[in-house]
Amino acid sequence: MPSQSLRLGIAGLGTVGVGVLRILRKQAVLLEKRTGSTLTISAVSARDRSKDRGVSLSDCGWEDDPVALAKREDVDVFVELMGGADGAAKAAVEAALNAGKDVVTANKAMLALHGQALAERAEAAGRVLRYEAAVAGGIPVIKALTEGLAGNEITRVLGVMNGTCNYILTRMEETGQGYNALFDECARLGYLEADPTLDVGGIDAAHKLAILSSIAFGTQVDFDGIEIEGIERVTLDDIRHAADMGYRIKLLGVAQQTGRGLEQRMMPCLVPAASPLGVLQGGTNMVVLEGDAVEQIVLRGPGAGEGPTASAVLGDICDIARSIRLPVFGQPASGLKQSKPARAILPAPYYLRMALVDKPGALAKIASVLGEAGVSIDRMRQYGHADETAPVLIVTHKCTREALDAALSAMSGTGVLASDPVVLRIEAV
Amino acid sequence: MPSQSLRLGIAGLGTVGVGVLRILRKQAVLLEKRTGSTLTISAVSARDRSKDRGVSLSDCGWEDDPVALAKREDVDVFVELMGGADGAAKAAVEAALNAGKDVVTANKAMLALHGQALAERAEAAGRVLRYEAAVAGGIPVIKALTEGLAGNEITRVLGVMNGTCNYILTRMEETGQGYNALFDECARLGYLEADPTLDVGGIDAAHKLAILSSIAFGTQVDFDGIEIEGIERVTLDDIRHAADMGYRIKLLGVAQQTGRGLEQRMMPCLVPAASPLGVLQGGTNMVVLEGDAVEQIVLRGPGAGEGPTASAVLGDICDIARSIRLPVFGQPASGLKQSKPARAILPAPYYLRMALVDKPGALAKIASVLGEAGVSIDRMRQYGHADETAPVLIVTHKCTREALDAALSAMSGTGVLASDPVVLRIEAV
Repeated sequence: MPSQSLRLGIAGLGTVGVGVLRILRKQAVLLEKRTGSTLTISAVSARDRSKDRGVSLSDCGWEDDPVALAKREDVDVFVELMGGADGAAKAAVEAALNAGKDVVTANKAMLALHGQALAERAEAAGRVLRYEAAVAGGIPVIKALTEGLAGNEITRVLGVMNGTCNYILTRMEETGQGYNALFDECARLGYLEADPTLDVGGIDAAHKLAILSSIAFGTQVDFDGIEIEGIERVTLDDIRHAADMGYRIKLLGVAQQTGRGLEQRMMPCLVPAASPLGVLQGGTNMVVLEGDAVEQIVLRGPGAGEGPTASAVLGDICDIARSIRLPVFGQPASGLKQSKPARAILPAPYYLRMALVDKPGALAKIASVLGEAGVSIDRMRQYGHADETAPVLIVTHKCTREALDAALSAMSGTGVLASDPVVLRIEAV
Repeated sequence: MPSQSLRLGIAGLGTVGVGVLRILRKQAVLLEKRTGSTLTISAVSARDRSKDRGVSLSDCGWEDDPVALAKREDVDVFVELMGGADGAAKAAVEAALNAGKDVVTANKAMLALHGQALAERAEAAGRVLRYEAAVAGGIPVIKALTEGLAGNEITRVLGVMNGTCNYILTRMEETGQGYNALFDECARLGYLEADPTLDVGGIDAAHKLAILSSIAFGTQVDFDGIEIEGIERVTLDDIRHAADMGYRIKLLGVAQQTGRGLEQRMMPCLVPAASPLGVLQGGTNMVVLEGDAVEQIVLRGPGAGEGPTASAVLGDICDIARSIRLPVFGQPASGLKQSKPARAILPAPYYLRMALVDKPGALAKIASVLGEAGVSIDRMRQYGHADETAPVLIVTHKCTREALDAALSAMSGTGVLASDPVVLRIEAV
């Protein structure tokens, strides 16, 4: 069988783009065996043509303008690795689709914010738009969810999807250093995005969650419907106290259908210390997929880096070379429903940390306020203390966020709280 | 777009077959949205037509003979869920391919023993033969390896692929009961195959490893090339001593290319207790895929059961409905090389447990024999003892199995061993 040829145009030659070039060259023979196609690079585009990237560009064309690259006659697949939700990346992807090219991208922000419009455009043009590298780096989670678990009604998707946040949280526990010191360490190590709030503010991870939700629940990507809280306010005290109660704090994304809409949240949560998510250390990512038939699948792997991210991009390119052509979010974009955002509808146990004024009856007041709001206490600890406030930890039984908020509001009127309580949800895994 | 129809013939209505029927009925609407096809069941086949399986068969045809089912005009995809490496299952799969049907199977033994011939037959007929359910139950590992990691040169595949063995080993540690008691418990719970040596002898897991090796390394399935040892001889003593040194014992499958051939083994090994494989409890499966670009991906999920296995079968059916058509082992069967089996070529650390005659100089003799064979000691422990033999544990630095065997042979001539040493490989993960 004579080999076919698939001609690529690659826009963006940062870490990932260079990684893709390296694999295409190093593994040319293997890739041809696996796909039945020769994968060639017609041209590339990046900001600075003269920069030394450690890979030769002499055998492929160059375009200063990614939009021009996207439209080239000799490009079958446009590979967008520039990043940025809007601007050049989006313009080039749109141009490529309009010109009848398939598209592979690693751009989570673009998909989280414009996924529905881009999917409609791709499907109208009869083109595919693939983005395995956009979620959880090297883990083939888009493929697992869209294809491997296609026989399941997905019940919950959750995971740790930002390696930098997980690195900071696990290093806080290991080293006893506070958030600020570890933020600085990450900045020195180059672990942070140019705008670090994308990482530590939970936004980058929420982009990924929005994409997974859409596939899992057949809904239009709804980034704005995600309740987002970053890790900036996680303290060493909470990390230690959570550990004391058998938990670890993770920046956890959770998406699930409730009777009253789609709940999507990305926020610091407690998970059992011995669970797969609890034992996840450092920059590794983990996604948990739950379905009515498969029960629970856990996927773990590197969430970033040249090799892993390029591996995911290559997976998409090989799929296209092998004529694997699916709707962008696993079913036609025209049939995706708008989801109704639901906020913390389902009951869960909560972790509460509070500092009580050290007076007789203080704890009793807190306990009775919780009881009146219908929040029952699973476990409680009061710690020894040298100053005038008594540290108290409470793990509640499952309760609604509504009931808990009522209790918290009543608590603030008791006069026994020395400061605002810390409230963290405990996610069962 | 008008919906297409994909007509199934399902042979075998045990747990998995019934699970597949249930999903096809319960999720008909969802499956049509995702695949663009209506999935219908033309006919089924099983041993006993009158048996009550808890699912209605009134809306589909019946064939007593699976071969007749495989050839039916109104069947597009033959789904083989009977099991057994040869006999009816193989005859029916061959008949289906010859009749131009695509095939989905969960039959690991058939693929491990006849995979190459079946792949050649399928590809000659232009048909696909899919088997996601054959390896690691609900985990979409065939898809991850064949498609998701297609851009990688795979360097190692390893994992825990038999839930019953992992259940026995973890329960031994938890309960302090010996192997025989837990074997009996598994028999009572229905966790064992009709021929239990398939499970506890490591054969079932080795079937799965043979399939993964073929995809990973582009070689013909070579079940006979696997070094297999079951868990029957794992003792409580070893489980406890391994734990003492920071390890857990797992029935671990490992496949990797060495300079001198393909190493495939399925045998009890030690893994670090805190590693993903080390913390794996009970009947859950885990497969670790390592590639030059992606580094390491870990997949965890239920290895058996109605829902998870049916989920994998449905994944394959949906792929066919979505026109995903790949060679059986990820590249044309005609190009798969015969592998040369290599046995424990790569050096590894080893765990040795021995009982020494309690005489002055006994330990020194062992240490010097090891040293002379070029095996250096990483850690050693001698335990207190009441009888006349001294229990000694040694963890070696990395050494070749050849060097270790020379040392073991020399040891037996020293006269200080009270019994044959236990030797277990320590696998780095």
